[in-house]
Amino acid sequence: MEKNIKIYDSTLRDGAQAEGISFSVEDKLKIVKALDELGVSYIEAGNPGSNPKDLEFFKRVKEIALNNTKLTAFGSTRRRNIKVQDDANVKSLLLADSPVVAIFGKSWDFHVKDIINTTLEENLNMIKDTVAFFKEKGKEVVYDAEHFFDGYKANQKYAMKTLEAAVDGGADSIVLCDTNGGCMPNEIYEITKSVVDTCKKEVGIHCHNDCGMAVANTVMAVLAGAKQVQGTYIGFGERCGNANLSTVIANLQIKKDYHCISKEKLELLTGVARKVAEIANVSLDAKEPYVGRAAFTHKGGMHIDGVNKSSKSFEHINPEIVGNERRFLMSEVAGRSTILKKIQKVAPDVKKDSPETMLIMDRLKELEHEGYQFEGAESTFELIIRKNLGKYKPFFILENFKTIGEKPNETGKLTAFAMVKVNVDDKIKMVAAEGDGPVNALDKALRQALEMFYPELKKVHLTDYKVRVLDTKEATAAKVRVLITSTDGVHQWSTVGVSTDIINASLIALIDSIEVKLLRELTNKMKAYI
Amino acid sequence: MEKNIKIYDSTLRDGAQAEGISFSVEDKLKIVKALDELGVSYIEAGNPGSNPKDLEFFKRVKEIALNNTKLTAFGSTRRRNIKVQDDANVKSLLLADSPVVAIFGKSWDFHVKDIINTTLEENLNMIKDTVAFFKEKGKEVVYDAEHFFDGYKANQKYAMKTLEAAVDGGADSIVLCDTNGGCMPNEIYEITKSVVDTCKKEVGIHCHNDCGMAVANTVMAVLAGAKQVQGTYIGFGERCGNANLSTVIANLQIKKDYHCISKEKLELLTGVARKVAEIANVSLDAKEPYVGRAAFTHKGGMHIDGVNKSSKSFEHINPEIVGNERRFLMSEVAGRSTILKKIQKVAPDVKKDSPETMLIMDRLKELEHEGYQFEGAESTFELIIRKNLGKYKPFFILENFKTIGEKPNETGKLTAFAMVKVNVDDKIKMVAAEGDGPVNALDKALRQALEMFYPELKKVHLTDYKVRVLDTKEATAAKVRVLITSTDGVHQWSTVGVSTDIINASLIALIDSIEVKLLRELTNKMKAYI
Repeated sequence: MEKNIKIYDSTLRDGAQAEGISFSVEDKLKIVKALDELGVSYIEAGNPGSNPKDLEFFKRVKEIALNNTKLTAFGSTRRRNIKVQDDANVKSLLLADSPVVAIFGKSWDFHVKDIINTTLEENLNMIKDTVAFFKEKGKEVVYDAEHFFDGYKANQKYAMKTLEAAVDGGADSIVLCDTNGGCMPNEIYEITKSVVDTCKKEVGIHCHNDCGMAVANTVMAVLAGAKQVQGTYIGFGERCGNANLSTVIANLQIKKDYHCISKEKLELLTGVARKVAEIANVSLDAKEPYVGRAAFTHKGGMHIDGVNKSSKSFEHINPEIVGNERRFLMSEVAGRSTILKKIQKVAPDVKKDSPETMLIMDRLKELEHEGYQFEGAESTFELIIRKNLGKYKPFFILENFKTIGEKPNETGKLTAFAMVKVNVDDKIKMVAAEGDGPVNALDKALRQALEMFYPELKKVHLTDYKVRVLDTKEATAAKVRVLITSTDGVHQWSTVGVSTDIINASLIALIDSIEVKLLRELTNKMKAYI
Repeated sequence: MEKNIKIYDSTLRDGAQAEGISFSVEDKLKIVKALDELGVSYIEAGNPGSNPKDLEFFKRVKEIALNNTKLTAFGSTRRRNIKVQDDANVKSLLLADSPVVAIFGKSWDFHVKDIINTTLEENLNMIKDTVAFFKEKGKEVVYDAEHFFDGYKANQKYAMKTLEAAVDGGADSIVLCDTNGGCMPNEIYEITKSVVDTCKKEVGIHCHNDCGMAVANTVMAVLAGAKQVQGTYIGFGERCGNANLSTVIANLQIKKDYHCISKEKLELLTGVARKVAEIANVSLDAKEPYVGRAAFTHKGGMHIDGVNKSSKSFEHINPEIVGNERRFLMSEVAGRSTILKKIQKVAPDVKKDSPETMLIMDRLKELEHEGYQFEGAESTFELIIRKNLGKYKPFFILENFKTIGEKPNETGKLTAFAMVKVNVDDKIKMVAAEGDGPVNALDKALRQALEMFYPELKKVHLTDYKVRVLDTKEATAAKVRVLITSTDGVHQWSTVGVSTDIINASLIALIDSIEVKLLRELTNKMKAYI
């Protein structure tokens, strides 16, 4: 029995259809890198026909060397009663210049007649023509049979004909979509099986979660013989979302012995989930299977006792397999070995039971309790380790600052002043700057002051600045977490700050960012003497 | 075929095992009332043996006349090697004085031997003795076979013997528990079916969501013949939670024609979900099947067009069936007809081609280009419509403001001052306030100033505050979008502001939030004169 399953991630396309989700081109590039490293087979990255911004992404993404993943552009069959080559959407798809295109077409007779207002015959032509057009252009073509299950239930014969049209056009795979998410697992199993038994091409599955069944339906389709699995990495999507691929991969690979990604990459599942959530600026549900913060968290005393005797007593798998960790709410014992690995990068001699390890573990717990999160902020994490190992001396002291904000004038620009006083080796420098709001003014003033001492900082600028409000119920007095990414044109690094005041949170991340750069410069200079 | 299913809700017992969930006695009484009105068959309301507070609840709950529901107290079998009547936990269970008791016992030989350290034989006695004891006391007894599926897979013969012990003791129903949540739907179906085929008593199912399968597993068990369904109303529970009963009820009753609650009560599903979330002080996931705020929300233009032609084109059921509602998001991809519907709420005479419609569409495009996004900020959208139709007069003018931010002192609190000057009908008021950062200080000052003119604002507070940085490449000079949600204890509304300065963005959203409240008060007062 063939147990290889191709994972097809649509976080950037179907995921972007979710309420509150909107990705910048930079966001998309970061997610592509993370998913490629994880090893998904396809990334459906945009719909160039309906969203012109996506074409910029498809240009920019060529800068990234992908190791595992084929990029896919998504679009519709041609419109009724025109030639494929005259269809604007089809032309945009070509401009994306991706090795794979996904074409969706109508399977449900009701949709053909009442929604896109054409004949059943013309719809078959639209499917076949469009697929054939892209095959002639040398593309791998994934055919998405929209509303396939609803169509099959309403008019089985016609639904099957639409698949035949795609096969006749030359489609490489045929994906059965439960577009409205209304099907039950037993239906999905039976209908998928009947297609797999007759279809000459690879069959895929695309499920939505309107009945809370997206993951189950996906697994049942695979058990029925589907070889390609579409979904979004942490379940974003229209309405109730798409099949959550982080859950699907873990279920198929750990529970059912299918092969979706390299075995050694399974431990990235949790980290990638948290990274995608952070980039999308949403909180990952703590209850998320496998990857959520509470997925291996025990509160009841009897459960904690049981897990201490043997983890399988109340855990279906070992959390380390998916890169997650066990937490006990009564007596917190965090994943020490993960942290040890990071410490050993700075101080290779430190052991699991060294007092330094305990010290850093305690400090980390404190910081996490304050709202820090180090996923995607490895540089701040490294500085914390150095500070606690005594392997660190600050490059400057921010002695004082003040900001003044004002009602904007007619132009609406330059609404704030900032003054800073820095101390570098007992030399004092004071600088004032104007900016768009107090954070920007403070950023400018601090950089100007420090560049006089450290000209190498002139090359540094921020490439990303994200603000996340924690405990949103506290409203304007809530804590915020600021994540910034900096570059000097060669390297890129990220730092994090938390405070109830956004100015302070930004400043903490900014100071760390500058320290990281200066530390790296110093290390490089030292190398000449070793 | 018998299609009646008994719904057994454990929100107050298993749900309270979740991280962050803790119910007061008052909370519990409110939830009991809501679930009884909905019509669930059983409410498992506490574990008097492990939680002495629960005894107070069982006393207080007698004040409530229940119409549909039987109250259940939950506890363990007796401990090994003692008499049932001497077991402290058993005695507490009796004190609860509930018509039903649920007794859980061990089904998995590994748990018997390695976790509770007794013999396989003694475990069978513990089950039979405890069930028999409560039957003699006249109780209805539900027997929860903990870890049944894991036990069945490890030692089928012994797992079945534990069920026989409960049946011999006189149990009224036998509930198969996937305690660790590690099973797949096909396994649950097959194992449940084999038990249903041989067991003389009613069989129930209790699933956890560690593989994202709790709802699917529950439905599959019902298809295999289970007649009782345990879960928690919106999925709270240890680790990844329990089977979500709001989803299970809708799936069984709407999709599979089972009878769980009265048909006319289905429309309470959404309201009860929101009430339980509110009482538990958590946000209900917008993506929650059937009952979430986004469950029938459409963003893509093609989906909106389709639903406008026929709702079944992109909705698996009509949202009204479960008391939810359809929403169209105001986004770049939304069409003119969506916007027209919103305009007509304010001005019913405006048509699709009216100049007002064009004007508002243009203004929206401008605002979206500036970074505004109206999904989830319908109140700002309403104000924009009013302003562009001339149906609006501001309740106050913010004449001026200043903020001063400072390096935090040792306590790290109160890092900012704000001064505001407001003008209401040419009366001027100036107020200063301190806060955690300039946004918080300004929020406080503005409210204090306006409450003197509009005392009704005292009831208003923010429940949510979200910040999203746009164009993150612009770093600290980037635009931010601030989304705030406010409540006056009765209504809830959301507003949005965009600026390169977070203070201004927050202020724009805040001013709109206040205007919305004052407009609503005015409209209510006017109604008396119409």
